[in-house]
Amino acid sequence: MKIVQFTINDDQVRVGVLSGENVIDLNASNCTIPHSLVELLGQGNALERIKKIVSNPKTTHKLAQVQLLSPITGPDKILGVALNYKEACDKANIPYTPEPVVFSKFASTIIGPYDVIQKPAASNQVDWEVELVVVIGKKARNVKVQNALDYVFGYTSTQDLTAKDWTQRNGGQFLLCKNMDNFCPLGPCVVTKDEIEDPHNIRVRTWVNGELKQDGNTEEMVHRIDRLIEYLSEAMTLLPGDIICTGTPSGVGSSQNPPQYLRKGDLLESDVEKIGKMANRIV
Amino acid sequence: MKIVQFTINDDQVRVGVLSGENVIDLNASNCTIPHSLVELLGQGNALERIKKIVSNPKTTHKLAQVQLLSPITGPDKILGVALNYKEACDKANIPYTPEPVVFSKFASTIIGPYDVIQKPAASNQVDWEVELVVVIGKKARNVKVQNALDYVFGYTSTQDLTAKDWTQRNGGQFLLCKNMDNFCPLGPCVVTKDEIEDPHNIRVRTWVNGELKQDGNTEEMVHRIDRLIEYLSEAMTLLPGDIICTGTPSGVGSSQNPPQYLRKGDLLESDVEKIGKMANRIV
Repeated sequence: MKIVQFTINDDQVRVGVLSGENVIDLNASNCTIPHSLVELLGQGNALERIKKIVSNPKTTHKLAQVQLLSPITGPDKILGVALNYKEACDKANIPYTPEPVVFSKFASTIIGPYDVIQKPAASNQVDWEVELVVVIGKKARNVKVQNALDYVFGYTSTQDLTAKDWTQRNGGQFLLCKNMDNFCPLGPCVVTKDEIEDPHNIRVRTWVNGELKQDGNTEEMVHRIDRLIEYLSEAMTLLPGDIICTGTPSGVGSSQNPPQYLRKGDLLESDVEKIGKMANRIV
Repeated sequence: MKIVQFTINDDQVRVGVLSGENVIDLNASNCTIPHSLVELLGQGNALERIKKIVSNPKTTHKLAQVQLLSPITGPDKILGVALNYKEACDKANIPYTPEPVVFSKFASTIIGPYDVIQKPAASNQVDWEVELVVVIGKKARNVKVQNALDYVFGYTSTQDLTAKDWTQRNGGQFLLCKNMDNFCPLGPCVVTKDEIEDPHNIRVRTWVNGELKQDGNTEEMVHRIDRLIEYLSEAMTLLPGDIICTGTPSGVGSSQNPPQYLRKGDLLESDVEKIGKMANRIV
């Protein structure tokens, strides 16, 4: 299933499931469903509750008539992994990190899959990084690699935007370069894991103004998804709705010759296979 | 005013104001008040709404009968500043950082002022760091030093617990060493800024098993509160309820000779002048 969050005719966020040219409205179909996928995941049995509604939906809307939002809003954690694609490390002559290098984003940085990105005044080096994103389905603590994928609910995609002129500021801590406003476009949907046979064989691409910039595959990950969950859940409890941005392939703007960064007016497009496309205009 | 969050007889979080040996129950006194200080701050006019209830409270409880929780839960951002006390830097022979060095904690790390701290299995070097905490009262974007304190609602205190054996892991990113479960005891109250004449003249102390370990004063800050708000709000929008942990004085466990870390059974006590005491047992 492809799960979305959307609005229609008013400002109320709704959770839905894509069905051809329609969206099944989970909230209108069952008033006990919360208006947030993160909250729904937190209540448990989300998949069963959604499937039951989808088997006999009461309310659907035409997809063309709704406004898609980020499918995840208000998670406790947005985790990101730096230097996690082999070819990108090879090209930059950076050895593979022995452990994942993890940073975080604030929930307030999330925007929708077709929202505009306000270029921050504080940076002139805003870079693109298309990524496959893991959505945690249940509480995970001290999970081992062998069972790690049991804790995954599904997958979505992001552009893990980064202010490259801030990576060496802030004492080398990535927090600020990763957390400017609007720096986490997310979506367009969360695909449940049953539809992703192998999360390590997913093509991920970025275009800027129609020109292909990144074209990688999640098979290149240095630290794979099961290992990321093991590593993170050793340090902290992962909660339902937490997301892990799994790193980006080569082709980011800072590695172009000459370096290229997002400017006002640019169109940033992303495609993560089996999940879908995002298009965000820089304004 | 000293604002708290508490429960009484059930699990519902309530917002209150300390009044001698009593707590004024804001929710029971006015049903339009949300059961979360962060949410109340987000709605605007929080101070006026609270003052109105306090001038004519309908429901109070005896302080001894309520359970105090963290006064802040579910903020978008918990920001922390490393190396921000001059004497601590001097003793460790570390030059003052030209810019604040900022890291973050997840909202799920917050515990109450008297809660137990589960020692994480992943660390044997859990260290204490008592800190004055700034609570943001309204949206702050590109704020200048001169006006920065206008955006402060009040102050609280924390022990910014840190797994020192993880500071050199994770590629030097502080995220994991700062974000183990229970690593953010907070409280016991938020003191509105009108009661803190000078936030840079506040004594902050830590005891471990009754022995004084830290005894500093916020006058020692390298980057003062107004500068922290300016710096952070250049990179991102600060939201009502966001908190900034302002750094810790000398006397942490890793600087003892020999180094000392928190062990099961230890009692960690903190006192931040004008805000109050916390006591957290390690279990």
